[in-house]
Amino acid sequence: MDTEQVAVGGSDTSAGLDPRIAARLKRDATGLFPAVAQQYDTGEVLMLAWMDDEALHRTLTTGKCTYWSRSRQEYWVKGESSGHVQRVVSVALDCDGDAVLVRVDQTDGACHTGDRTCFDADVLLAG
Amino acid sequence: MDTEQVAVGGSDTSAGLDPRIAARLKRDATGLFPAVAQQYDTGEVLMLAWMDDEALHRTLTTGKCTYWSRSRQEYWVKGESSGHVQRVVSVALDCDGDAVLVRVDQTDGACHTGDRTCFDADVLLAG
Repeated sequence: MDTEQVAVGGSDTSAGLDPRIAARLKRDATGLFPAVAQQYDTGEVLMLAWMDDEALHRTLTTGKCTYWSRSRQEYWVKGESSGHVQRVVSVALDCDGDAVLVRVDQTDGACHTGDRTCFDADVLLAG
Repeated sequence: MDTEQVAVGGSDTSAGLDPRIAARLKRDATGLFPAVAQQYDTGEVLMLAWMDDEALHRTLTTGKCTYWSRSRQEYWVKGESSGHVQRVVSVALDCDGDAVLVRVDQTDGACHTGDRTCFDADVLLAG
């Protein structure tokens, strides 16, 4: 079998994460790694959430940002209930494989409070 | 004693993190939380690293981004050996207290590979 059939960003969501990507990932003790969502055009850092291999696979293959909810212990398609969806524009893994940057097009606010970003409300040191 | 003496962004680095900030933080099982460094003017997401309370305290009070190295198990002032320092411009905590966004002015490349950001080299899905 030609392993090239397991394409990065392919459309088959049933096969799980491309093993070539999985081999580069470093996960914490619970199998998770942080994912940063950034608005692709303005550069705003919208939020940080958590992924496992399957959440990254779904993010790469469905075009919708998908995370793992540590509190609810379930997959979570951003905006599925609120409508504040994140359309995936690009995805990159960092140099040591322990974090992901997802550039997205965010509909309305990313934060559950209604704020545009999750970092708007609690400024510890102002620039 | 007037607790207001423990000022946010104050200059006393010996007293530890302001307990009002510490009370809002959610840490993982090893006492850490992710910190995203973003170039303050261009919006580039430069890197993701890890902090504990003391690293955040030092970041807030010294003007230099300070992380906890999980591999070396020690504090790490970004750029201390490379000269690729991160001058702290602003710091914000996210809505559920489990991640920090530090806007910085990055000297040269943020990545140990020489790249400008740690997310430049390993693009999983291109926009």
